[in-house]
Amino acid sequence: MRLRIDLGYDGSGFSGWAKQPGLRTVESTLDDSLAKVLRLPEPPGLTVAGRTDAGVHARGQVAHTDVPLDAWAQNGERALYRLSRVLPDDLRVVALCEAPPGFDARFSATSRRYTYRLCDAPVGIDPIRRLDVVWNRRPLDVAAMNAAAAQLVGEHDFVAFCKRREGASTVRTLLTLEWRRGVDGLIEALVVADAFCHNMVRSIVGACVAVGEGRRSPEWVGDVLREAERSSSVMVMPPQGLTLEEVTYPPDAELAERARSARRFRGGVSR
Amino acid sequence: MRLRIDLGYDGSGFSGWAKQPGLRTVESTLDDSLAKVLRLPEPPGLTVAGRTDAGVHARGQVAHTDVPLDAWAQNGERALYRLSRVLPDDLRVVALCEAPPGFDARFSATSRRYTYRLCDAPVGIDPIRRLDVVWNRRPLDVAAMNAAAAQLVGEHDFVAFCKRREGASTVRTLLTLEWRRGVDGLIEALVVADAFCHNMVRSIVGACVAVGEGRRSPEWVGDVLREAERSSSVMVMPPQGLTLEEVTYPPDAELAERARSARRFRGGVSR
Repeated sequence: MRLRIDLGYDGSGFSGWAKQPGLRTVESTLDDSLAKVLRLPEPPGLTVAGRTDAGVHARGQVAHTDVPLDAWAQNGERALYRLSRVLPDDLRVVALCEAPPGFDARFSATSRRYTYRLCDAPVGIDPIRRLDVVWNRRPLDVAAMNAAAAQLVGEHDFVAFCKRREGASTVRTLLTLEWRRGVDGLIEALVVADAFCHNMVRSIVGACVAVGEGRRSPEWVGDVLREAERSSSVMVMPPQGLTLEEVTYPPDAELAERARSARRFRGGVSR
Repeated sequence: MRLRIDLGYDGSGFSGWAKQPGLRTVESTLDDSLAKVLRLPEPPGLTVAGRTDAGVHARGQVAHTDVPLDAWAQNGERALYRLSRVLPDDLRVVALCEAPPGFDARFSATSRRYTYRLCDAPVGIDPIRRLDVVWNRRPLDVAAMNAAAAQLVGEHDFVAFCKRREGASTVRTLLTLEWRRGVDGLIEALVVADAFCHNMVRSIVGACVAVGEGRRSPEWVGDVLREAERSSSVMVMPPQGLTLEEVTYPPDAELAERARSARRFRGGVSR
């Protein structure tokens, strides 16, 4: 049977989501803990909505796993409580339940919402907030950043902002890209797309920061978008400013069809 | 001349405010950095509004220091910028300026505002928020905690909630003690007093938590307040939930008089 897992983590201490030999990753830590609390002989394996890079955080990450029916029948009720005791304090599972039929954490998802957090206060970041905020020493013009952002919204080939993978499409639909200034120098980008390619959010943010600092014009971002390969002029921003906030799924009746069509139209790895 | 310093820190990596040989403290880190950016032969020495314990955080801490006029004349303009480059990322100076006449960071202060942050979500704390929030595994009844809190507000001898010091008064005026429930299991205590004795906030919070968990009645807190010495029945809560948010001063014309009267009526160490 399939379980849906809702989780969050501070990415600072993890080498990203995906398992890698000898490294502490979110996937391996969660997979091992699930085996423990469900009394499985081996980690059950995970599929995730957004494969976050090293240092990237998540608040509303979603994964699924397939486990034997009897393991869930015997240990399911106590599993969430046991996880809260077993997991390290930089990783939290907030919900664990039977997935509806046709659910696939990765391919059923209709959109992913990320936030990128910057601070341009000349005195630096509030130390208590520094885990998920990147200090930008130069002041940023948020209106100019929004003018740049507006040119990226819509369905485009984002190849200029992505690490290319063989055979994988880099066409994505960017639904929202908005910059907002908060208190104490905090500046947040709200970024929503059907899915993201590798490095895409951090590259888009880097392009907007170049505009916000006055090094580039807003129109330059549109020029980059029309380039036919990864652009060397775009800075990839540091991972610690990026948080996966939410993954959206369609109504249960459409989960299976959505997964089928996403598999058909997208290749490679979703983020 | 006297400088007023406004600062904040993540207390996790410091052995408290006060200098101690061989330990990393906020006072020694800041004092050394001031000497560096003002080109002083020795650390100038600091007086602080709230002497926080090891692990306690601050967002609106205030301190003062006395420095030679020529050092400030030569290096004052660039000092704040230089501090932002020199200080570690768990300590931030947000303002540095000439203090008004009669200003004493400790004795001129009219009130201190602290927040204590708890989370009673059964699944634990959002990992990104864990620096300044304490997980309480048992659910808390905020209405009962506020009923308990109401009995402590006002001018009282808080000796039952304090580490006693010889010759120091433990009479304080608790101006505000309010519990509020936020999202995702977050529960915050807003605590304001003219000044606090050692351990006072964390002991008061511990008493309220005992009530919130249903282990004690709200009236019990009033009984503790009437005890004539430190109560062994009150739990001192962990330091990482506590943040000094703000220190309030009177109008400039009253700074000196306020400092004189506070020195007269209070002994020992203010927090």
